[in-house]
Order: sequence, then C-alpha cells, then structure tokens
Amino acid sequence: MRIATMRLSHHRINIDRLMWRIRELGQIGALPGGGVCRLALTDADRQGRDRVVAWMRELGLTISIDRIGNVIGLRPGREAGPAVTMGSHIDTVATGGLYDGNLGVLAGLEVIAVLNEAGIETRRPVAVGFFSNEEGARFQPDMLGSGVHQGAFDLEEMLSVRSVDGSRLGDDLQAIGYAGDTEIGTCQAHSYLELHIEQGPVLEEQAVTIGAVTGVQGISWTEYRISGVSNHAGTTPMRLRHDAGYLAAAIAVEARALAAEFGGDQVATVGVTELKPNLVNVIPNQALLTLDLRNTDDECLSRAQARMDGFIDQTAAQEGVEVRSRTLVRLAPVDFSPELIARIEQAAWALGHSLRRMPSGAGHDAQMFAPHCPTAMIFVPSQNGISHNIREHSHRADIQAGANVLLQVVLSQAGP
Amino acid sequence: MRIATMRLSHHRINIDRLMWRIRELGQIGALPGGGVCRLALTDADRQGRDRVVAWMRELGLTISIDRIGNVIGLRPGREAGPAVTMGSHIDTVATGGLYDGNLGVLAGLEVIAVLNEAGIETRRPVAVGFFSNEEGARFQPDMLGSGVHQGAFDLEEMLSVRSVDGSRLGDDLQAIGYAGDTEIGTCQAHSYLELHIEQGPVLEEQAVTIGAVTGVQGISWTEYRISGVSNHAGTTPMRLRHDAGYLAAAIAVEARALAAEFGGDQVATVGVTELKPNLVNVIPNQALLTLDLRNTDDECLSRAQARMDGFIDQTAAQEGVEVRSRTLVRLAPVDFSPELIARIEQAAWALGHSLRRMPSGAGHDAQMFAPHCPTAMIFVPSQNGISHNIREHSHRADIQAGANVLLQVVLSQAGP
Repeated sequence: MRIATMRLSHHRINIDRLMWRIRELGQIGALPGGGVCRLALTDADRQGRDRVVAWMRELGLTISIDRIGNVIGLRPGREAGPAVTMGSHIDTVATGGLYDGNLGVLAGLEVIAVLNEAGIETRRPVAVGFFSNEEGARFQPDMLGSGVHQGAFDLEEMLSVRSVDGSRLGDDLQAIGYAGDTEIGTCQAHSYLELHIEQGPVLEEQAVTIGAVTGVQGISWTEYRISGVSNHAGTTPMRLRHDAGYLAAAIAVEARALAAEFGGDQVATVGVTELKPNLVNVIPNQALLTLDLRNTDDECLSRAQARMDGFIDQTAAQEGVEVRSRTLVRLAPVDFSPELIARIEQAAWALGHSLRRMPSGAGHDAQMFAPHCPTAMIFVPSQNGISHNIREHSHRADIQAGANVLLQVVLSQAGP
Repeated sequence: MRIATMRLSHHRINIDRLMWRIRELGQIGALPGGGVCRLALTDADRQGRDRVVAWMRELGLTISIDRIGNVIGLRPGREAGPAVTMGSHIDTVATGGLYDGNLGVLAGLEVIAVLNEAGIETRRPVAVGFFSNEEGARFQPDMLGSGVHQGAFDLEEMLSVRSVDGSRLGDDLQAIGYAGDTEIGTCQAHSYLELHIEQGPVLEEQAVTIGAVTGVQGISWTEYRISGVSNHAGTTPMRLRHDAGYLAAAIAVEARALAAEFGGDQVATVGVTELKPNLVNVIPNQALLTLDLRNTDDECLSRAQARMDGFIDQTAAQEGVEVRSRTLVRLAPVDFSPELIARIEQAAWALGHSLRRMPSGAGHDAQMFAPHCPTAMIFVPSQNGISHNIREHSHRADIQAGANVLLQVVLSQAGP
C-alpha cells in the first residue's frame, strides 16, 4: 500500500482550553477524591450531555440527536456528504475517571474550535459525536449507542433493554430528554477517528507518547460451572476426591501457561472464582469461574479457546467432576484502516512524538464504525495503566500530543 | 509388644434398642428431610442432654456434671479407681446427621444395658460420657469439653469463650442448666474408648466393617491473603500483571502435586478461595485462600507445610504480589494405645468382622484423652463417606458390629 505523505499543518490545539473542558465536564457527577460517576442515562449523564451540547452550540455545530440518544454536532464542509467524524462517549463506570471517553469527545470539540478560530473551511464536513452507554455499566451490551448507530444492534431491541436497576432504556432516554428523532443511518461517517486513553500500562512502560491503534482484540469470555462432591478434607483420601475447586485452580494455572505459549498479544485472565461451600475443611463441591481470552488474531483466539476447553474436559474427567460452560461474549477482532493508521503515524512523527503501533485490549465505539468506514484510534498513556478508577490520570503533555495528532489527521481527511 | 489374647465374651449388644435410642435422640432438633441440628448449649442441646441423662438414670448410672458441662454416668466396679470410659458428644453441626458423636454415647449406654441385664460385676468401674461442644460449630475451639476435661484447655478461659451469636459459654451453660459443680479432674479415666462413624469413604470403598483407629492426623491450617494489582484484563500484557488470583490458583494446584508426591495418608485441601473484585475482565488484586494439610507423621506434616511456604514465597516474588500468611490451626498427630488397638483388632477378628487399621482424618474427643490414658477408637463405615450432612448414614449391621466390638473391649478392659 502506498500512502501519500501528509502535509503537516501549522495549526495546534489549545491545551489550556481542552484541559478546562475536561475539568468542567468532570465536575458533573464528581466523586470525592477525584473521578466521576455519570452512569448512562442517569440525571448526571443528562447534565453532562447538556454541558457538551451547549459547547457544541457555542462552536456553531448543527446538533442531531438520534433515536438511541447518540448526539452528533456537524460542521459543514464545502462539499456535502458524509462527515469526517470524531467521537467517543461521556458515560462512565460507577467509579470512573475524567478521561475515559470524555477525552475523545472534548478533543473533538477542541479540533472544531481550532478550525473555527483559523477560519478553515474544509472540503468535507467534520463532526463530533458522543454515543450512548458505551461502558455497559448500567445497560448491557456495552457500546450500545455506537452499535445501533452502525447497525450492529437493532434499535427497537436496544430501546427495550433493562438497566441493572430495572428501568427500560427507552424510558430513561425520554426521562433525560435525549430520545431524539433523528433516524438511525442519517449521520453517515466518511471516516471515524477516536482519541482515547490507553487504559493499560504499555505506552507508559515504554515511554511512548502516541499509540497508533491497529485494531481491537477479539474477545472470548466463558463461564464455567463445575460440580463435584463435597467431603471432609481430613477423612477423604486424595484418590477419592471430586474437587470442583481443584479444577477451577487448574484452569487458571493452565490459562497462564497458554498465554505464555501463545505469546504475542494473547492474554488470558481468570477474574471470577467462587467456591461452595467455601469452608477451610470441606472439599468444594461447586466452583464458578470465568475465563477471559483475547487475541488480535481470530484464528489464534479460537485455537486458544479450543485448547482450554480440551484441557478442561480432560481434567474434569480425571477428577470426576462435571463442567457446564457458557459463552458470555465472543467478539471477532476488529482491524482498523491501514491508511488511517499510517496517517496517525505520519502525524505523530511529523510532530516529533514517540510512537508505536498497538492493538486495543478494550472495546471502543470505534470498533462499531470499523466495518463501515475507514476508522482508527489514537492512544495516549494512562498513568500506571489505571482506568475505571478515580485514580485514572493522563499527563497534560500527552493529551496535548494526542489531540494535535487528531487535529492533523482530521485536517488531512477533511481536506483543505 | 506382646498382648495377651482376649477371651471373647458371649454377650452381645441389642441392636434394636441401640437403633431406637439413635432415632429417639435424633428427633430432638430434627431437620426436615432427616438429619438434626443440636448446636452446642442451645435449647435443642439441653433437650438432647436431658434425654441422655434420663437414660443414664434408668440404667442406674451415677451422674456427674462438671463445670464445663461434660456429663459422665458411672457404673461402679468391684474395685474403686478410674473408670473404663466410653464417650463422645451429642452436639451437632447445623446440618448434622444422627450418628456423628451420638453413636459413641448411645453405644456406651447399650454396653451398660448389656452389663446390667447380664448382672455382670466388673472389676473396674465403667463410665459413659458426653463432652460439651465437640463440633466447634457454635464455640471455638472444637473438642472444647473433652479438652478442658483432660487439661488441654483452661476452664476459666473456655467459660469466657463467645459463641458465633455473641453469648458467653458459661452463661449458656447456666441457661440450659448444665453448669455442673463437679471439679475438673475428678472423673479420671482408666482408659478411653470411642465408637464413631468414619466420616470418610475408605471403609465403604474397601468393604471393611471395622476400622481400628491408630490415631488422629496432625493438622496444619493456614490462611493466605494475597495482594496484587487490579488491572484491565484486555489492556494489561501478561508480563506486567500482578495477579493475586493466579497465585491462589497456583497454590491449589501445587497442594495437589504435593499430596501426590508425599503419598501415604498426606492430604491437602484448598477449601476457601475468594477473589476481589471478582469481575470477569479485571485482574484480581486480592485473594483469600486456606490450605488444610494433614499427615499422621508430624515431621512429614512440617515438611509439607514448609514446602508449600517455599513455593508460595517463590511464586509470589515471580508474580510481584504480596502474601500474608496466618496459622489458623496446628495440631500434632495423636497416637492411640497400641494395646487397645490390638484389643479392637482381636475383638473384630473374633467376631468375624473385616477390619483395617486406619488413621482418623478428623478430630475427636478421644485425642484429648490419648496423652493421659490408654485410648482408642472404633470406626464403622459411613455411607458414601458423607457426614456433617443430613444424608449422613451408617448401616444397622455395621453399627451392630462396632457396638459389639466396643462391648468386648470394654469387658476386657474392665475385667471380670
């Protein structure tokens, strides 16, 4: 593939203004000790949405709200047609940080502000959007709004989804005033760009400022329910045991061995383990366990899952326990646009930032756009790799670098 | 050691009467679906005690209740002096069976009934006792009453122990009318014999009727609290993880390997595992785990514990997690009297029962007597090895066999 060299614009984002907006938005739903709680479609989310929409209006954007509550602010270009779209989400987990999602939306506003100040008329329209319920903390699935926007999920089905507290998504949208009337499919994207914090430790560990994200790892989540026989820990010889807890432990150890053997970006995590009766001197007769496998290569991911399942079947038979498994999530890996990835790299190089290509281990709204338009993401470092936590932090200089890369790529995409 | 051949008496226990007493006592605190709940020093325990004491009086026994609530019924011999003592406990766990403990006490009453009916005057006194709070379900430690009786625990300290519901043991004893005035040390035992269900699967699996118990396994219970770092399961490369759950799993797998390597009667059990935050896509930052190691050889048990601790330290260092360990229980193995074990074997052989020597994997009142007088236990099979469960069951024929062995050994110990 041959990619035209990008001309570096002399325009730069205003980091003070961007940081001010991040702090302002972070005050809505602010938690003691820092961090923020703006669960999707709650009153705090409404206040956050109102704040961002007000900024969009101040920036002269034309606002559309679609039927699942996605909000898109449009800046027209010389030509009509799909917009070069920046976006992310402003909902958070219950103990969220100031940057996850918000950075991508507010950096998008900052890019618009720079275009406005410089009086730049782009060839294509430029848009900034935020998408409903990306986190999946209050409604399942996550990335719900962008999924509906891009046709991965059915609108009516998603409007009927129930929150963890039992309310209907459509009703909550009405209640906060964001049940819009823009039909799904109206706001097509020419291309989609999302600036996001890494939410992992890699960039910081390698002292790299910009991650050019190559795609999103495929995910396989499986739940295992193991049934054995509960017996006395003292009186039951090892050879007569049917220990549900032993198999659970063996799975976790095997998962680690598998990740080491597969190498590359294969990760394997046992996050949940629960034993019953969970007493010091009783052999567990029940164990619940989850296995989270991720790989950027779908075929590798399937092989990893198959190898674990083979190990589990064999070990269960040896131990004389029964296992019921249930796939909780199976998502194929998503590849981002090679051209856009290259544009991000060119911009980062031209701006003098250190850079690496990397996959995203977490899901993002961008993955919903990737099958339909050229899509890419820009990562900036997360301090200590921490996210979904009130201690989530990214350095101002890194945010500035990431937002300037975004500006450059948007300029190149939107055209002079 | 040379042991005189035992003469087999023609007397036999009355299995109908014994089974009737077992069922009668089992009706006090009876649970739906079978089983019984008579937690120590509750009203149900009082009713059970009253029932057994009434039987003791009917059998003409002289009753003494000591200051920790142990009840001993004495049948005088031709000579004064310490009594050949049978005993066990009548308290149960919350979902107990009809046999655990009760069998040893009621078989003791049956032996007395046989002596009475046959008009046998023994040389030595014969006694039957039941000891307070053997199970440890409501008060810690377990074997509390027999421990005080034999001087392992301090009387005043144990009177001040608090129940799981907060009450003081001494007050509960008063409330149920079993705060006796017999001073500790008054009722010395010439020898101690306890018939008990195996509470394990070995006798049944090997189709053996009588277990001649050689002693009680030493126990080492350790609690491990592991602290790692919580991070995203997708974005955190394997090499940057500090996974508390991984170490917990590795300990459980290593414990199994250790038991296989040590062999013999070494058992190793991880009964408790708890992870935090216990979410499918978050690397656990905390894990709680218990390890239960048992061996009849104290030196082996110490080596097993040391090997586990070495493994844990090394693996924790590799994983970059911290471990705090706490010894919950450390009991040395108890050896029973070779002479009494041989007497049990002789009686079982003479009565035509299949037999094997075996250690006890569980703790019993007998172990408190073992350091102070010749002590042994007789095991009968537990169906499916199940105990501490309303499905606990032992076959009538096995109970009959065990009680007849008890009768023969008591006759030989008490002397014609």
